[in-house]
Amino acid sequence: MVKYMKRCHDRHEKVVEFRQPEELNKLINFELKDTPEDLATVIDYCRETLNYCVKTGHPRFFNQLYGGMDIVGLCGQWLSATANTSMYTYEVAPIFVLMERAVLRHMGQLVGFSDGDGIFAPGGSLSNMYAISLARHKKFPTSKMEGLFSLPRMAILTSKHSHYSFKKGAYFMGFGLNNVVMINCDAKGRMLASDLENQIIHLQSQGIAPILVNATSGTTVFGAFDPLDEIADICQKYDLWLHVDAAWGGAIILSAEKRHLMKGMHRIDSISWNPHKFMGCPFQCSAFLTKKKGLLEECHGIPASYLFQKDKMTYDISYDTGNKSIQCGRHVDIMKLWLMWKAKGDQGFTKKLHHAYEISNYLTEKIRNRDGFELVVEPVYVSICFWYIPTAIRNLSDGDVKRRKLSQVAPQIKAGMTKRGSMLVGYQPMDDKVNFFRMIILNSATTFDDMDFILDEIESLGERIEFVQNGFHNP
Amino acid sequence: MVKYMKRCHDRHEKVVEFRQPEELNKLINFELKDTPEDLATVIDYCRETLNYCVKTGHPRFFNQLYGGMDIVGLCGQWLSATANTSMYTYEVAPIFVLMERAVLRHMGQLVGFSDGDGIFAPGGSLSNMYAISLARHKKFPTSKMEGLFSLPRMAILTSKHSHYSFKKGAYFMGFGLNNVVMINCDAKGRMLASDLENQIIHLQSQGIAPILVNATSGTTVFGAFDPLDEIADICQKYDLWLHVDAAWGGAIILSAEKRHLMKGMHRIDSISWNPHKFMGCPFQCSAFLTKKKGLLEECHGIPASYLFQKDKMTYDISYDTGNKSIQCGRHVDIMKLWLMWKAKGDQGFTKKLHHAYEISNYLTEKIRNRDGFELVVEPVYVSICFWYIPTAIRNLSDGDVKRRKLSQVAPQIKAGMTKRGSMLVGYQPMDDKVNFFRMIILNSATTFDDMDFILDEIESLGERIEFVQNGFHNP
Repeated sequence: MVKYMKRCHDRHEKVVEFRQPEELNKLINFELKDTPEDLATVIDYCRETLNYCVKTGHPRFFNQLYGGMDIVGLCGQWLSATANTSMYTYEVAPIFVLMERAVLRHMGQLVGFSDGDGIFAPGGSLSNMYAISLARHKKFPTSKMEGLFSLPRMAILTSKHSHYSFKKGAYFMGFGLNNVVMINCDAKGRMLASDLENQIIHLQSQGIAPILVNATSGTTVFGAFDPLDEIADICQKYDLWLHVDAAWGGAIILSAEKRHLMKGMHRIDSISWNPHKFMGCPFQCSAFLTKKKGLLEECHGIPASYLFQKDKMTYDISYDTGNKSIQCGRHVDIMKLWLMWKAKGDQGFTKKLHHAYEISNYLTEKIRNRDGFELVVEPVYVSICFWYIPTAIRNLSDGDVKRRKLSQVAPQIKAGMTKRGSMLVGYQPMDDKVNFFRMIILNSATTFDDMDFILDEIESLGERIEFVQNGFHNP
Repeated sequence: MVKYMKRCHDRHEKVVEFRQPEELNKLINFELKDTPEDLATVIDYCRETLNYCVKTGHPRFFNQLYGGMDIVGLCGQWLSATANTSMYTYEVAPIFVLMERAVLRHMGQLVGFSDGDGIFAPGGSLSNMYAISLARHKKFPTSKMEGLFSLPRMAILTSKHSHYSFKKGAYFMGFGLNNVVMINCDAKGRMLASDLENQIIHLQSQGIAPILVNATSGTTVFGAFDPLDEIADICQKYDLWLHVDAAWGGAIILSAEKRHLMKGMHRIDSISWNPHKFMGCPFQCSAFLTKKKGLLEECHGIPASYLFQKDKMTYDISYDTGNKSIQCGRHVDIMKLWLMWKAKGDQGFTKKLHHAYEISNYLTEKIRNRDGFELVVEPVYVSICFWYIPTAIRNLSDGDVKRRKLSQVAPQIKAGMTKRGSMLVGYQPMDDKVNFFRMIILNSATTFDDMDFILDEIESLGERIEFVQNGFHNP
């Protein structure tokens, strides 16, 4: 594994040694059998796994909202894996329960909750669902016993640029996708507070009860920050739960310089903040924090006499966390984060953030000034969205023909970089904008030179696209 | 960590070096600050963590439905932590996606699903919620878009001895706790099929729609197995989704000798089976399997253009798993299990199970024949439930006085063993039975001698309880 870690930091190594599923199936025998295989073969499997997995710690992996390789965090993860326990009681996780309390308290204070509560969840989607759960319980406390059947139709409001987990949650939690109201955004991807208010009024006029407004701090594609103060005014006026999905953007809370993007955050009711994203904590690590102490337990507490014995004579059972959770067993996600935070302090994360901003600013400037590259939106965070427009279509007039051709450029270039293994960058369409690249900058090992490299690489791949009658030909 | 692993296998080492929360808070500085701490201190924290965490790998840890230390599984966990990625796409998790497919296929075949589907979830509670989700969607497909608001009241049926996650799920997913119907059990903790049918008829007469019956294979306390064939007959008659919560008991599928406890399992619609429980896979590892191919995606699929690009030119996107999940990012829980299975084969797990049965049979026999010990129920699995009745109350006549005194014995002994750190065994009340011990036997390192040790230790602690006016005095 040490060799692997070195490979992740060597720019001569590929980001991925890509193989098609059918090829990998030939290279590695995945099938399980009745009989054991020998240890040498098992060790070979480990080697092959590290060979064919995507090197997310590589400085040229820009594909997801996570990446990099934090050695302290990784040690924390190995260590808690070795301890192999569950977070539900102090009895079996004494030290981890206290770590979680300390981290939640610290994160809560940074957000501005003086005496809040929280829990670590298996990912931001479930953290967001915790918010929906609390909001529902606060507005309709009978729903815990009776469900939604005899209650008025409820709605969740979130922006068109927000994360799809609100839809997943709405389905899963019994609201239905049609009861997620998508609020319009401005050109920069920020929720339009005026549209939010209009939608609330419209819902209420139909007898539908809005229960939660989600504002996003760091949208998934543009990295936009919704205007929290304006949205908080509206939520206050209509008595609505205000949740902030800061899974991606929450890290800016650690920068005095950038914190203004979340101005008003002390007024919110809850927040999702994923240290496994920008902060570089190994996957999974997602915090859900709320201002309302006791509500998590009020919602999710179910007596389980075999776990939460009220007559325990060993310790104060208020340290048990199981009744706050919708899970029973809960993975120890806290050790790695706590250890990283000890080793870095707030300052370490702030430095990481400012470094990423420097690299992002450099890249943005290059895109702005280089032929064939075009920003999709002016970035405010470390997500940089841009098109590459190959020479062959650069002078076409704007219109459907150009759009159709341009929409095929990013997938072609992506296929090319994947085959080469030289780097990984994501792409997607958004609103009326056809496929564009989204560069995520968060790895502290990434340099200015890497930015030049990726632009050269995109250009080199983009210029090799051969235009054919019905689309593009893969070089 | 190697030293720690050795300590976990040394019977002279304590299972836990127990400290009260306030003591631990003094021993370790949990607070996070703005400034970093030096590396030596961070390494000290690692050492202290291993010192004060509960040694769940110790052969005298019998406290939870997990434990032991499988070195191959642990290596798999370290390795996938190092690879640090998410399961949602083949793009970023190629090798892990193929491992998951192979394991799900193998587990599905063992259950008797010829062409099923499945997903790994963060724990059995969420696996059980997947079952509720599929059952709801099958019966009321409009709920995906419209939610539960205009639908008839729905009910979930599960036994009184089943896991509390059905209540958590019923709350979370919008059904409400009152719509979980608890079916009566026989004296051995098995669901009474006759009561199930009565309840279904009763619900239907009230216009309530039952949507899912959960049968448990390996209940949390008694380790009982509900009669699947009888329950399947009823579900077939009333066209109800039959889910089996085999989180704890699923391992018996790997034993030709014991498989009869789940006779009829090929007839079920879905199953939760947690390899992190009996099979000894490091925590978390929970499989959800269903016979109905395609339904997971039909329920949980939400287009997310930034992840599941339909115009990907690199590979066949049917390998992406994100649309089956209610999560977005999903932890790699598969590597450790896949590697263990390669190293053991089915046979290795079968051997582990038969070893645990041998130890359990030995313990059961001892309890049956030793003064002061009494079985709560005849065990069919590796959960052994029993009382210790101290000499001082052994000859009291049955009645409230004896019950009140007996109910305080287990908590007292538990407090004593925790302080000594000599072993850990859980306890709880159940139905009309006051607090009793529940021994969980799953660690392959556990021996017959350990069983003698625990009975001696319980007796020694139990005899030292001093009876005082209003209860017991802690020795």
